[in-house]
Formats: sequence, structure tokens, C-alpha cells
Amino acid sequence: MSQGSSVSKTASEFFPMTSDRASLPIGIFDSGVGGLTVLRSLREQLPQESFIYLGDTARLPYGTKSGASVVRYSLQAAQFLLGRGIKYLVIACNTASAVAVEALRQRFAPLPVLGVIEPGAVAGCAASLAGRIAVIATEGTVNGGAYQRAIAAVRPDARVVARACSLFVALAEEGWTTGEITERVAHRYLDDIFGVPEGPDTLVLGCTHFPVLLDTLRQVVGPAVAIVDSAHTTALQLRATLTAQGLLNRRGGTPTLQLLATDGPERFARVGPRFLGAAFSASAVELVDLSAAI
Amino acid sequence: MSQGSSVSKTASEFFPMTSDRASLPIGIFDSGVGGLTVLRSLREQLPQESFIYLGDTARLPYGTKSGASVVRYSLQAAQFLLGRGIKYLVIACNTASAVAVEALRQRFAPLPVLGVIEPGAVAGCAASLAGRIAVIATEGTVNGGAYQRAIAAVRPDARVVARACSLFVALAEEGWTTGEITERVAHRYLDDIFGVPEGPDTLVLGCTHFPVLLDTLRQVVGPAVAIVDSAHTTALQLRATLTAQGLLNRRGGTPTLQLLATDGPERFARVGPRFLGAAFSASAVELVDLSAAI
Repeated sequence: MSQGSSVSKTASEFFPMTSDRASLPIGIFDSGVGGLTVLRSLREQLPQESFIYLGDTARLPYGTKSGASVVRYSLQAAQFLLGRGIKYLVIACNTASAVAVEALRQRFAPLPVLGVIEPGAVAGCAASLAGRIAVIATEGTVNGGAYQRAIAAVRPDARVVARACSLFVALAEEGWTTGEITERVAHRYLDDIFGVPEGPDTLVLGCTHFPVLLDTLRQVVGPAVAIVDSAHTTALQLRATLTAQGLLNRRGGTPTLQLLATDGPERFARVGPRFLGAAFSASAVELVDLSAAI
Repeated sequence: MSQGSSVSKTASEFFPMTSDRASLPIGIFDSGVGGLTVLRSLREQLPQESFIYLGDTARLPYGTKSGASVVRYSLQAAQFLLGRGIKYLVIACNTASAVAVEALRQRFAPLPVLGVIEPGAVAGCAASLAGRIAVIATEGTVNGGAYQRAIAAVRPDARVVARACSLFVALAEEGWTTGEITERVAHRYLDDIFGVPEGPDTLVLGCTHFPVLLDTLRQVVGPAVAIVDSAHTTALQLRATLTAQGLLNRRGGTPTLQLLATDGPERFARVGPRFLGAAFSASAVELVDLSAAI
């Protein structure tokens, strides 16, 4: 197995410091299917790039796991992707972005690593006129406070309220993205935040599952609230960074897409297309084992 | 660590074939907090017994993982509990009961192993007058078909319909056990099953999370449907078995309860009491590492 030989190598051995680098795929990982919304945005913004996506479905969700566990899982995922050859690593998972981005940068330098939280926080600050920002995310992301810190770093005067919306994940995976139940759940989570004078003027979607609920969220918070999808803003930032660093793939040819999962390719292929916005079958999903990585 | 030394021992070395056996605790494992409903029923039925409960919160949920992964996790959990000294192993997780009970019995014989599916299926067959039985469970349990097979083994003429109700797990963990949202979700999952002529007369709760939703489920399916809680029926069967085998603890004294989790004792202690029906704090939850087991 390819990850077997990767264990003893260092990051720089994997990472060609040559012009070949630009033609390598971009590596992305998430705990499961949610990060496919990030992949979707990346493919829209970077149609000439090849991608390799790893969903750690054997250990999902990360949102309720401890920081130490999520860091360990993230290091394993990154090591595995590095073994396949990537030019950039995108953490398409808010929980892992919150706790593991520094550990990944340290361990795998000079591989550039981009999480979804910083771009989401920057975009949220940019979108907010009044500086009143709501963040919705999983329990782990909210309790970890990473969005709150990232927003404060950009805009210290911002007033941030964060709310864990665990049921949104289940609704998104069940495919109940619109309809009365989903609206009622959204009202229950959001009305006390938005239904007040001087409520937030911006809503940051701090979980990669949530973009598929966009229509319902728009309806519940109303037209006056800016909704920031961190998947989209991450893709914009990555495009800007690759452009600035001369790392855009200019070779032409058909870009490739590799989908990897650590468990259950069938479920991945059944639930995933809704998040990716494109069809794929279980036979297109490669089952991989991270236990040998690190 | 205690599991370190356990790896090289066989099951029979752990398992005292003497009268001391009856005073050992009963071991229980689940992927997380859901199995605490089984522990609750066991404590009600067996107030003189000591229990050691292991929630594999680092790898929850099992319901969406492959059978091979769940078997591996179950063997590790059982090995760990055996290392602590137990007289009986209860699999308080439907997914693990469905796929791992035979592997556990083979690997750890003579340790007796009881899952929740067989007692639930037997009780469902006993409760049903018409032989029309509905089973609600997680996706993994439903797709695996274990309840359908277990019911057919007891009552071959039974007509069984099984439905995956993934959102019930999220609702139970969120604490939204009653109210309009939960009722609507229940209607959406169940109305096409029960709202027909000659619908099921029995509903088997095939997920250990579901007993906390009992009031809502009762309201939605109506008073004429028998609801079978496999946690309760498992406890009844264990009491009968321990009695028959002379394994009831007759030493007297105060029975003990040990709670172990593989991740996040804080979350375990915040969500768990609703399932156990008794308060406990994070400091009462011991964090353990299964990675050294097997």
C-alpha cells in the first residue's frame, strides 16, 4: 500500500520544490461527506485543477470528538494524502481546521495548509456592516471558540454569537434540506439570535454540511442577513493564493478527481453527490486505510 | 495501563471458573451514550449487580460504519472489559449486536455474550397478535437485516417492515425528546407504515437511543400499537439467564458502577444522564484507550 512506504519519509521528500509542483493535485480531507461542499466550490473556482478528496468516514463525525483525537486523525489524513502527491492541503472540515491547522503546518512544512475557518471569518467580517456576526457550527467547533477568535483577530470590535446546530448535520445527511421540519428546526436554533433588535447582520456557515441547507436558512433569517459560506470563501482564497504563488496548473489536459474514504464507499456514494453537486458511484470511491499512516 | 497487559492473555485466563464469578461486574459496551438506556434497564432489573459500561465515543456512531470496522471495534471493547474482569458481556448497541455477536462469542468463549437484537426480536414476536411488526433503527442496523432475520427465526410468518430513522438519534442526543419538531419527524418516518389498513400492531425500538423518545412515539403510533424497547427486554433476559446459571451476585454490599469512555468525558457526562436516567459528572467518567487492545 502506498501509505506503507510513506511513513518513513519526511514531508520535504514528498514535496517537489520544482515546476512540477503546479501540476500536482490539491489534497482535501474531511471527516466524511460534508467537505464535498468545499470540493464543489474548489472545482467551480479552479476548473483546471485536479483534486484528491479523503473522507475519514470510519471515524466521523469529528465534531463531537476531543481536540487530541481530531489532531491525530488529521495528521494521519494529511500524511496519507502527501504520500499520494499533492501541492496544497485543504482542511475541508471546520472541527479539524479549528484544532489541527497549526499542527499540520508544523509537521508537514513546506506543504501549504489552508483551513476553512480563517477564510470564513475574514469573509464574515467583510460582509458585516454592523459588526454583528452569528456563527453556526457543530458543538465541537462552537465550544472550541475558533471562529470567535478568528473573527476577533480581524475585527476586534465585532459582536459574535455562536450556536451549535447539531441537527442540521443529520438533516443534511438525510437529504431533508427544505420543508417544514427543517424550517422549524432552523427557527428553533436561530430565532432567539436573529429575532431581536440589533441582531446579527451576517450569518457564517461554520460547518461544511450547512451549505446544502442554504435555501431554508435564507428563508428563516430573512433577506437582510448576509450568509457567508466558508466553502465558497475558502475556494476564493485558495484561487488567489495559487495565482500569487504561480501554483495554478497550466498544463491543460483533463483534470482528475480522486475520491477516497476510510469506510463504507456505498454510503459515501449515496449521500455524497448531494454535497458535491455531481453524481458519482461507489465504484469511483477508493477505500483506504489510514491506520498505517503515522 | 491495564489493557496493555491484557493483550497477551487468553479469555479463559481472565475468566474465573469459580464461585467468585458471580460477584464480578457485568460488562456493557456501546458506541456512545445510547447504550446507557440498556444500562438503566439492567440496573432496574438487577439492582444487586455491579456494572462497568464502556462508551466508544472516539469512534461513534457505529450505525454508519462498515461491518468489518464495527467487528474490530467490538473485539477491542470486549477485550478491554475482559481485562477489567467481568462475568457477562452485554452489547448495548444494535449495530454491534447485529454484526459482532458471533465474533465476540467465538473469540472470548467461555465468556457469555448477550446482544440486544435477539431479545428485542423475541419480545416483538411475543407482543404482536397479528404478526405484523415494524422495526425502527439506524441505517446500518436496517440495511444489515439482523432484526428481520431474528424475527423470521422466531416467527416465520411475521410480516416485518424496517425503517431507518437517523434523525431520531440526533434528536435524542440534542434532548429534543418531545415537542412539535420531534412529532413531525416521527410522523414523517412512520405515517406511511402505520397509517394504512392492516398496519403493524407492534413497534420494536431497534436503537438504544430511541427509548428516550418513547412518549412521542406512543403519541404518533397511537395506543393500539405495542412498543417493544429492546433495552428492557434485554435486561429481562439477562436476569433470567443469570438466575438460571446461578450467576446472580449474592454477596450483598453496595453494587458499583464504572463508566468508561474513549473520548470526551465532558460531553459524555452532559448528554449521558438523560439516557441513564441518573445524574453523573465528567469526573466520574474514566477516559480509556482501546488502541492497545487486540
